[in-house]
Amino acid sequence: MEDTRKEIVTLLRQKKYRELKTVLEDLFPVDIAEILEELTGEECIILFRLLYKEQAAEVFSYLGVQERKQIVSAISKDLLSYILSELYFDDKIDFLEEMPANFVRGVLAAASPEERGQLNQFLNFPENSAGSLMTIEYVDLKQQMTAREAMARIKRVGLDKETIYTCYVVDNTQRLEGILSLRQLVLADEEQRIGDLMHTEIVSVEAHDDQEAVAELFKKYDLIAIPVVDAEQRMIGIITIDDIVDIIEKENTEDFQKMAAMTPSEQPYLDTGVLRLARGRIVWLLVLMISATFTGAIITKYEALLSSAVALAAFIPMLMDSGGNAGSQSSTLIIRGMALGEIGLRDWARVLWKELRVGLIAGILLALVNFARMALLGHNELAVCMSVAVTLLLTVVVAKLVGGLLPIGAKALRLDPAIMAGPLITTIVDAFSLVIYFGIASVLVLNK
Amino acid sequence: MEDTRKEIVTLLRQKKYRELKTVLEDLFPVDIAEILEELTGEECIILFRLLYKEQAAEVFSYLGVQERKQIVSAISKDLLSYILSELYFDDKIDFLEEMPANFVRGVLAAASPEERGQLNQFLNFPENSAGSLMTIEYVDLKQQMTAREAMARIKRVGLDKETIYTCYVVDNTQRLEGILSLRQLVLADEEQRIGDLMHTEIVSVEAHDDQEAVAELFKKYDLIAIPVVDAEQRMIGIITIDDIVDIIEKENTEDFQKMAAMTPSEQPYLDTGVLRLARGRIVWLLVLMISATFTGAIITKYEALLSSAVALAAFIPMLMDSGGNAGSQSSTLIIRGMALGEIGLRDWARVLWKELRVGLIAGILLALVNFARMALLGHNELAVCMSVAVTLLLTVVVAKLVGGLLPIGAKALRLDPAIMAGPLITTIVDAFSLVIYFGIASVLVLNK
Repeated sequence: MEDTRKEIVTLLRQKKYRELKTVLEDLFPVDIAEILEELTGEECIILFRLLYKEQAAEVFSYLGVQERKQIVSAISKDLLSYILSELYFDDKIDFLEEMPANFVRGVLAAASPEERGQLNQFLNFPENSAGSLMTIEYVDLKQQMTAREAMARIKRVGLDKETIYTCYVVDNTQRLEGILSLRQLVLADEEQRIGDLMHTEIVSVEAHDDQEAVAELFKKYDLIAIPVVDAEQRMIGIITIDDIVDIIEKENTEDFQKMAAMTPSEQPYLDTGVLRLARGRIVWLLVLMISATFTGAIITKYEALLSSAVALAAFIPMLMDSGGNAGSQSSTLIIRGMALGEIGLRDWARVLWKELRVGLIAGILLALVNFARMALLGHNELAVCMSVAVTLLLTVVVAKLVGGLLPIGAKALRLDPAIMAGPLITTIVDAFSLVIYFGIASVLVLNK
Repeated sequence: MEDTRKEIVTLLRQKKYRELKTVLEDLFPVDIAEILEELTGEECIILFRLLYKEQAAEVFSYLGVQERKQIVSAISKDLLSYILSELYFDDKIDFLEEMPANFVRGVLAAASPEERGQLNQFLNFPENSAGSLMTIEYVDLKQQMTAREAMARIKRVGLDKETIYTCYVVDNTQRLEGILSLRQLVLADEEQRIGDLMHTEIVSVEAHDDQEAVAELFKKYDLIAIPVVDAEQRMIGIITIDDIVDIIEKENTEDFQKMAAMTPSEQPYLDTGVLRLARGRIVWLLVLMISATFTGAIITKYEALLSSAVALAAFIPMLMDSGGNAGSQSSTLIIRGMALGEIGLRDWARVLWKELRVGLIAGILLALVNFARMALLGHNELAVCMSVAVTLLLTVVVAKLVGGLLPIGAKALRLDPAIMAGPLITTIVDAFSLVIYFGIASVLVLNK
């Protein structure tokens, strides 16, 4: 692939367009799209123009926003309307959503009244809804058809349909009555009735359902497509697995970003401007900086203790880091478990009990290792060693409990568990850890 | 669903088995499996025995390890061998991998010599390889067949095949020559030859390829199945999209766990024992605790400074937390971008430049806000306010640079970027931040 890319760039710069055309013919559209995304504006357009029409349409469906905008402004009206006509309906909607309003108006004006209505309806679905993912290209059958008639219908209309592997049986008002996989249809006797072949237990979604819930259904039932219906069970479209794989990755990216204290963004990192990147990070950095005032206030309160035993200060970072790490281990496991549906609200007591024991094991071990290290290697007073060890044990246990329960608590309050992760837990655990540390040190170090 | 569950449990406890059977008949196998997983051992077995044979086999394929082991030990030999014969080949392999060796030997002994060979081969593929995911159930066609003959073959053999939506055209030595979707076959003229219809550009994998790489191909080419071939391009099996969706989630879970400094584990949280949970966390907690010795040593070195200006200690937690948060924001974005293939090694300079600017913007803003807060609200000396502000600015910039570049560096050294995340970066940034802080404070606070 890397070699092909280099060959293409070389041919392009040598303006050997005829040879270039031959090389391009044998490539997968998605690979051509990848190469286009690495070229500069002008080269990108030259290369795109060398593609034959059908290929151009497919390559276009894989391109990023920047490249699409460039190409749209440079190609002929004819090619553009050909590409638009070849795009699957859901890809067309995605594309229109990215383009400026006057371009969209142009496309709507050129569409047939029926298509215009559909485009308008789909453009108005909220961004993360099932409706925004769906396509109107599917095969619908009627109960009274035979398998033979159904196959004939698929042959007639199938070329335009994004997926023909699941067929939808509807009545005259488009109400969904059953589903039938192409597999079953192919394997059926030709004279059997669709009404007898179809399944009537249907997993479906409504257009305003959240896309994350739709992805859950795909995972649970191993689907390759799901029908989208309105409140009266009338078919309005289908969602296919390829879009769901993207959604799963997007939802995961969102969780990663939230757990690292950022405002989630769907845009790829390299395409995001510096100001926008900064904006997504500053809010949480400010919130967390100001919440660290607590820990500062605690230290200030114990300034007298600290000046009389300044050695205590050396262990503050270690205590805080260990607490933070212990807490984010637990919260990550719980947040992930909840996202995958393995842990629910009613499991809070089991989580509490597990984390308590894990915290005790980890805390005792860390405290012992650290006590040994400090007593043997450092030149610390026994009172300081004891204070650090006891604080470490208690900090790890509390961090595990807070890390385990805070995400569940957040979910119970209908807040996002991922936002409760790492940083917020760190602040709580930090404050707790300092209070314990100075509390114990007051007794052990001052009164020794 | 919740109501159905309650109804079933009630009927079960009232021993109304006949009614129970009727209720169960209308449920999806995956939903029955979910209910079974919530029941106690004995009830689980009673309920399972009430299922009719075909349903039992399907429900079984959705169950967890614990439930499967329970059921296997309680059901009749006949039902067990029926279930085994109904399981798809890849599900059967998964199941055998979970069971104790003597059970596996029994199954192998009962299998036909041909199947025994296949089972042995598949049981020996490494855990995360393409081979461990694949199934041998696919439709193979020959070039010289017509579309009509191909359809007839699918009808004859198709019932046993996990997916018939992609057919594989092989020669007499099983070498893969082309692929053909059922969709194309259905839409084709009955007399057309398979050799003319098939595609010869094939995306395939080898059995020892890593499952993550396989998932990448599915995402890139929007596949629903991929052929697995040996070094001579001979077909040995296929991998289907439903297994890939699981792999994507598993890989994401692994990244979440590594980034929170844990040894990754595939087992669901609630099914994992306390000792095992503790083991996965303690190693990193110990490593990070001991690496925090650096920060301790730095503070000890500046003990004299600290005792003469103990107010400085109050800001150590805030500085360290801000640095840690700023760094993990950057590392998360970069690690995720690399996992999704959006950021590569050659992008290091772009990342550096972006993070430098984001770091400056965020750092200046945080430093200003904090300076204002300290100067206006606290009763701090100007020299302390200045030291904190300058340290904050430098810490945020360095944290962003380290967070952005460390994962890329790890990848360049063929290490796992996710392991380099959060905690390790925190340790580096903490140490840097303290050195700067005390360095500046030595000048500003002591020499004032």
